[in-house]
Amino acid sequence: MNVAIIGASGYSGEELVRILSQHPNVELAAVTSRSLAGKLVADQMPALRHLVGELTFSASDPEELAANPSIDLFFLALPHGVASEFADPLHRAGKTVFDLSADFRLTKNRIYEEYYGQSHPAPHLLEAASYVIPELADDKWHSASLIACPGCYPTSIQIPLVPLLKKGIISPKGIVINSYSGVSGAGRKVAEDFIYCERNESMKAYGIPKHRHLSEIEEQLEKAAFADCVVQFNPHLAPMSRGISTTIVAKAETSIEQVYTTWNETFAEKPFICVLPSGTYPDTKYVSGTNRCDISAVYDKRTGNFVITSVIDNLLKGASGQAVQLMNLKYGFEETAGLL
Amino acid sequence: MNVAIIGASGYSGEELVRILSQHPNVELAAVTSRSLAGKLVADQMPALRHLVGELTFSASDPEELAANPSIDLFFLALPHGVASEFADPLHRAGKTVFDLSADFRLTKNRIYEEYYGQSHPAPHLLEAASYVIPELADDKWHSASLIACPGCYPTSIQIPLVPLLKKGIISPKGIVINSYSGVSGAGRKVAEDFIYCERNESMKAYGIPKHRHLSEIEEQLEKAAFADCVVQFNPHLAPMSRGISTTIVAKAETSIEQVYTTWNETFAEKPFICVLPSGTYPDTKYVSGTNRCDISAVYDKRTGNFVITSVIDNLLKGASGQAVQLMNLKYGFEETAGLL
Amino acid sequence: MNVAIIGASGYSGEELVRILSQHPNVELAAVTSRSLAGKLVADQMPALRHLVGELTFSASDPEELAANPSIDLFFLALPHGVASEFADPLHRAGKTVFDLSADFRLTKNRIYEEYYGQSHPAPHLLEAASYVIPELADDKWHSASLIACPGCYPTSIQIPLVPLLKKGIISPKGIVINSYSGVSGAGRKVAEDFIYCERNESMKAYGIPKHRHLSEIEEQLEKAAFADCVVQFNPHLAPMSRGISTTIVAKAETSIEQVYTTWNETFAEKPFICVLPSGTYPDTKYVSGTNRCDISAVYDKRTGNFVITSVIDNLLKGASGQAVQLMNLKYGFEETAGLL
Amino acid sequence: MNVAIIGASGYSGEELVRILSQHPNVELAAVTSRSLAGKLVADQMPALRHLVGELTFSASDPEELAANPSIDLFFLALPHGVASEFADPLHRAGKTVFDLSADFRLTKNRIYEEYYGQSHPAPHLLEAASYVIPELADDKWHSASLIACPGCYPTSIQIPLVPLLKKGIISPKGIVINSYSGVSGAGRKVAEDFIYCERNESMKAYGIPKHRHLSEIEEQLEKAAFADCVVQFNPHLAPMSRGISTTIVAKAETSIEQVYTTWNETFAEKPFICVLPSGTYPDTKYVSGTNRCDISAVYDKRTGNFVITSVIDNLLKGASGQAVQLMNLKYGFEETAGLL
Repeated sequence: MNVAIIGASGYSGEELVRILSQHPNVELAAVTSRSLAGKLVADQMPALRHLVGELTFSASDPEELAANPSIDLFFLALPHGVASEFADPLHRAGKTVFDLSADFRLTKNRIYEEYYGQSHPAPHLLEAASYVIPELADDKWHSASLIACPGCYPTSIQIPLVPLLKKGIISPKGIVINSYSGVSGAGRKVAEDFIYCERNESMKAYGIPKHRHLSEIEEQLEKAAFADCVVQFNPHLAPMSRGISTTIVAKAETSIEQVYTTWNETFAEKPFICVLPSGTYPDTKYVSGTNRCDISAVYDKRTGNFVITSVIDNLLKGASGQAVQLMNLKYGFEETAGLL
Repeated sequence: MNVAIIGASGYSGEELVRILSQHPNVELAAVTSRSLAGKLVADQMPALRHLVGELTFSASDPEELAANPSIDLFFLALPHGVASEFADPLHRAGKTVFDLSADFRLTKNRIYEEYYGQSHPAPHLLEAASYVIPELADDKWHSASLIACPGCYPTSIQIPLVPLLKKGIISPKGIVINSYSGVSGAGRKVAEDFIYCERNESMKAYGIPKHRHLSEIEEQLEKAAFADCVVQFNPHLAPMSRGISTTIVAKAETSIEQVYTTWNETFAEKPFICVLPSGTYPDTKYVSGTNRCDISAVYDKRTGNFVITSVIDNLLKGASGQAVQLMNLKYGFEETAGLL
Repeated sequence: MNVAIIGASGYSGEELVRILSQHPNVELAAVTSRSLAGKLVADQMPALRHLVGELTFSASDPEELAANPSIDLFFLALPHGVASEFADPLHRAGKTVFDLSADFRLTKNRIYEEYYGQSHPAPHLLEAASYVIPELADDKWHSASLIACPGCYPTSIQIPLVPLLKKGIISPKGIVINSYSGVSGAGRKVAEDFIYCERNESMKAYGIPKHRHLSEIEEQLEKAAFADCVVQFNPHLAPMSRGISTTIVAKAETSIEQVYTTWNETFAEKPFICVLPSGTYPDTKYVSGTNRCDISAVYDKRTGNFVITSVIDNLLKGASGQAVQLMNLKYGFEETAGLL
Repeated sequence: MNVAIIGASGYSGEELVRILSQHPNVELAAVTSRSLAGKLVADQMPALRHLVGELTFSASDPEELAANPSIDLFFLALPHGVASEFADPLHRAGKTVFDLSADFRLTKNRIYEEYYGQSHPAPHLLEAASYVIPELADDKWHSASLIACPGCYPTSIQIPLVPLLKKGIISPKGIVINSYSGVSGAGRKVAEDFIYCERNESMKAYGIPKHRHLSEIEEQLEKAAFADCVVQFNPHLAPMSRGISTTIVAKAETSIEQVYTTWNETFAEKPFICVLPSGTYPDTKYVSGTNRCDISAVYDKRTGNFVITSVIDNLLKGASGQAVQLMNLKYGFEETAGLL
C-alpha cells in the first residue's frame, strides 16, 4: 500500500516520515511540500539521514494527487484551512485521508468559525469525517475514509476523562484542566517568542481562556457525558522540546477504586495506555519518543476531587504516532506496527 | 549592624550570601555550616568568588551564637526542625531571627505535626513568631524579633489571592492551584530523582494532594477570607533551574475590573510587585534573578472563573530575597536595598 | 538465540533492554542487577513500560550464568573491574560476551593499571578479546567470542581519524581533540556534580590531561598510523542529556578531497556513517536516538590543518547501539536490525 | 553624567540598560531604537520592569544626538557598519563613545573588508579608536574618546593568552582554540536555526575556519607576541542561554609555575579575574550574570602543551559588562561600580 505525506516540512511531518519510512506494511511513495519541492528530505530532516536516502520533496497539487492511481492513502500535515484544499479532492477521488489539522475535528461549522476565525472551507465534509481517539472508539469508524486526528492537548485530556464521564464517575461540571506543552507544540514556527533564549528557563501561561483546542475538548467531553461540559482549560509553555503534561481536577462522584476499575477495563488491551498506580505520577520524559499515554489519579478527601494526571509526546500520541495507529487499525495491521 | 547566616550550604544560603555580602546597611559577620566549617565559602559557592574573598564557613553552636554580643541579626537557612534548635536560644538572647524554614510558619502545633510528621520542637515560640509577606502585612510585625519567612509556593499564591479574598472579589470555595517549580526548589539535594538526566526534558506532578506548603497556604488564605478555605494544590516539577509559575482558578464574585482595582491599590507603592494587564502572562524567565512577583488575571465568561497567574524566583522572592526585604523594612532601610 | 544483559540498571543497560526487547533475531532471556534483583524492569525504566511487560531483574551469579545452557550470548553493562568477574567464567564456558566496560579495550596490562589504577582482574583474557569498531575492522573478529565494545569518546574519534591515519592523509603528530559530552556520559551517577541545577546552563572541561579514554584512543590511533601518536585530548561536560560532539585539529598531509575520497570509500556501504559535505557541521541533535556517526571536515589554508568534526549518541553508537551492531554482524543478522 | 544607549533592542542593549539604570555615577538619559521608538522599554525588556519605570525608546538620529549638549557619553549596541554612522558624528562633536560593534576593533581597513565583506564605513576613525581589554592595557587609553569594546570570544581568549605571549611562556605558533558559546551569542536573532527545538540538546561547530572574530584575535595576539600568530579557532554553539567556554592548547615554552606566576602578577589587583588552581576547571555557570573571567591551566607532559581554559558571560564580560567597566576606569569611578 502506497502512502503520501502532504505538507511534510514541519515537526509532525518529520515524525510521519520517520515512522512511515520504516513501517512494515506500507510504502512511503511521496512526501510533499510546496516550499521545499525538489529538495532532499534529508537536508530538511537531518535526523532522518539514515532512513530517507535520496527521497525528495515533491510539489503538491491537490487535483494531481487525487488523480494519481498509485497512491491510496494520504496523511495531511498542513495548517487548518489549507488541509481542506487537499481533503476535498482526495475524498472525492475515493482516497483515504488522515488529517492532522483541525479542519475536521469539529462537527459544527459555527464552532469552527468561532474558534478558528474563518468560515469552514469544506463544510460539506464535516459529516463524512470521523474524529477518533482509537482507545476510546468502537470499530465503526474503520469504514470512514476521512479521519480527523485529534489535537495534542485534547488527546491528553480525553484519554483519562472520557471513560470516567461515560460512567458518571466524575462530574461534568467544574472541571479544571492545566496543560503544559513542550515548545515543539508550536511546530517549527520561526518567531521571536520561540527563539532559544526566550523559551529556555521560561514557564508561562498563554491563550487563556479560549485556546482553539477548547472547542474540540468540550465537544468530545459533552458527547461522553451526555451533558453540558464547560471546562476551564489553561495551556502553558514549558522549557522542553517535547511532551505534554496535563493535570485535571474533577469532582469525584464515586471512589478512586472506580476510577481505576473503569480505566483498567477500558484500557486492558490497549498497548499504548499505561495506567499508573495512584500516587505514581506520569512524567513526560518517560513517554518522549513513544506513542504512549501514561495516566494516574489520586483522590483528595479534603476537597472531594480527583486529581488526574496524564502525559503524552505531543508529536507522537498527540499527532503523528496516533495518526499511524489509526491507519494500523483501519487496515488491520498490527496496532503497534511502526510505533515501537 | 552585623548579621550571620546559619546553615548556609544550600542554594537559599548562597543567595543570602550574595545579597548580604553587598548590602549597604549590614555587615556579613559570619556564615555557618556544620558540614563545611573551616572551608572557604568561595569553594562551595564558586559563583560568588568575586564577592566573598577569603570568607570561611564557621561552626555553628546555637548557645555560642546566642552569647555573641557582636551579632544582632540572624538568618536561618536550615531544614525544618533544625531551625528551632537555633531560633530558641537566639530568641531568648534577644536576637532578631529571620527563619527561612517552615518551623514558625504555622500557628497550630497540631497542623505542624500533621504536615511535618513530628512534634514541633519549640511550640512555645509559635505565638511570638510573625509570618510576613511584606506586601500583604501592615507594619505591626516590625516589632517582632522572630520572623517566619513564607515558603516559595505560598508566596506566589498569597500575593495575588489575599487582597482578593479580603475584599470578597473571589470565592474562598473551590480554589484550584497548579504550581510549577524549577528544580532548585528541592535545594541542593543529591538524589537520583534530581540528577540532570532525570529532570531535563521532564515535567511531572508530585506531592498531590497534600504537599507540606498546603498547611501554610490554607491558614493564610482563611485568615484573609474570614472563612474556611480548602484549596486544591497541585505542585509540579519543571525542567528549569529557577522559578515558580502558579496558575489559580477561582470563582469570580465581581468583575475583572475589581480584581485590578484591588491589586493596583494594594500594590501601588510596592516596588517588587508588577501587575500585568489582563491578557499579558507572567513568565518565570522575566523574574529570574529578581525579588519580583509578576501577576495577572483574566475573566472566563464561559466558566465564571478568574484565572490568575503569578511568577516568582523561588530562591529570591520565594526565600532569600524576601527575607532580606523583611530585614530592610524592619530596620527602616530602603526596601530595595541589596535587591536590585 | 537467547541473550542476557548483565548489570542493566544504568543508562547503557536501559538502551540495551530497549533494543534487545524488540530485536527480530534474539530473545531477551534475562536482565540482571544485583541491587535490583526481584524488581520490575518497568519500575526502574519507566520509559520502557510498553516494551518490558512483567520482565523482572534477576540476581547475577557469574558461575550460575556460565552454567546456564539456555543463554548463549551476554552483554555486560558493568563497571570496569566488575565486568571481568563475569567475562572470565562466561568465556571459559564458551559463551559469547559483548563487554561494554573498559576491561578488554586495551592490550597491555601495564597501560590498564596506569589509567584505571588497579591491576587487571583477568589479564589472561586480554589476548582473546577483540576490540572492534565495526566500520573500521575487517571480518576476522567475527570468530572472537569476547568482544570489547569501544568507549563513547573513542568511537567519535576513531571513526573519522583511523582511515585518514592509515592512508597518511593526516599527520599522527600534534593531533588536538576537544570532545563535549552530554551528562548521561557519567551514567546514572548520583553525585552533587550531576544534579540538575549544577549541570544546567553549565559548560566545563574536566579530566585533562589524562582521561581514561586516552589510553584506548592512542592505542588504536597508533595501530592505524603505524607510528607513535600522542594526542591532546580535552573532554568537557555539556548541558544536554545525550550526545558527544568532537572537534579534531590535525595537520593536513594531502588535500581535503583526499579526506573525502577516503571516507567515501571506507564508509560507502556503512549504514550508520553519514559523511557530510565540507562546511556542513554535524549536530548532536540529529544523531540523538540513533546509532549514527556523522562526520565532516574543512581545510584551513591559513593553518594547514584539517578541522574534523563528528557527533554520536554516546549511549547508542557510543555504547549499546554499537554493541548490538556488533552482535548483528557476528551472527549474520541484518546490520541495522533493531537499530532503526 | 548623562549617558545614552544607542540601538538598545537586543540582548547586549538590555544588559546595558540593566547596569546603567542602577549605576551610582551616571544617569541613563536616553535609550534609542529605530524600530521601537515610542514604545516602553519595559515591554521589550520585561525582565527590567522593576528598574525602568516609564522609560521609553526614543528615535536615534546621529546628528541630533551629536548636537545634544546634555548627553556626554554614548554606548553603541548596533550592528557593525551601522555603528560607524553614529560614531562618526558623535566623535566629531567631542562625545565619548563606547562601541560594542566590530567597527573599530581592527586597525587595518583591509582586514575589516576581508572579514566583514564591506568597505569600512569610517576608516578615518580607525586610528583614533582604542581597542581595550581593561585588565591587559596600561592607562594610556583613558584619554581616548572612541573606545572599541572587544568581542566575546576574543575576550575569553586574550585574557589568559596575552600575558603569556608577552613573556614568551607559550609559543605563538600552533595555538588551537575551541570555544563554545551560549545561544545569546547570536543576539536576539529570529531565524530557524535559533528556535528552541533546534538548539535544545544540540551541540555543533560553525563558522570554521574563518569566523569574523578571528581577525581581532590574531591582531591582538600578534601584538602581544611581537610575532606572527596564526591560530586555529573553532567556534561552536552550546545548548545554553549564556556563557562562553574556551579551551586553548598552546605549546609550553616554560613551566606551569611560570604561567601562574605571570597570571598572578598580571591580575593581582583585577577584581573580575579569578585565577583558579591547576586542575580546577572554570565553569560557565559560575560566571553567568557576572563580569568575571575565570581562568585555569594544566601542563600535559605527554604532549608538552599547556591546556588553558577560560569562561565568561558573553553578554557581560564579553560585551556590556566590560563596556561599563571601561567607562568606570576612564572616568575614575570604582572599577566595579554597577557590576557586582
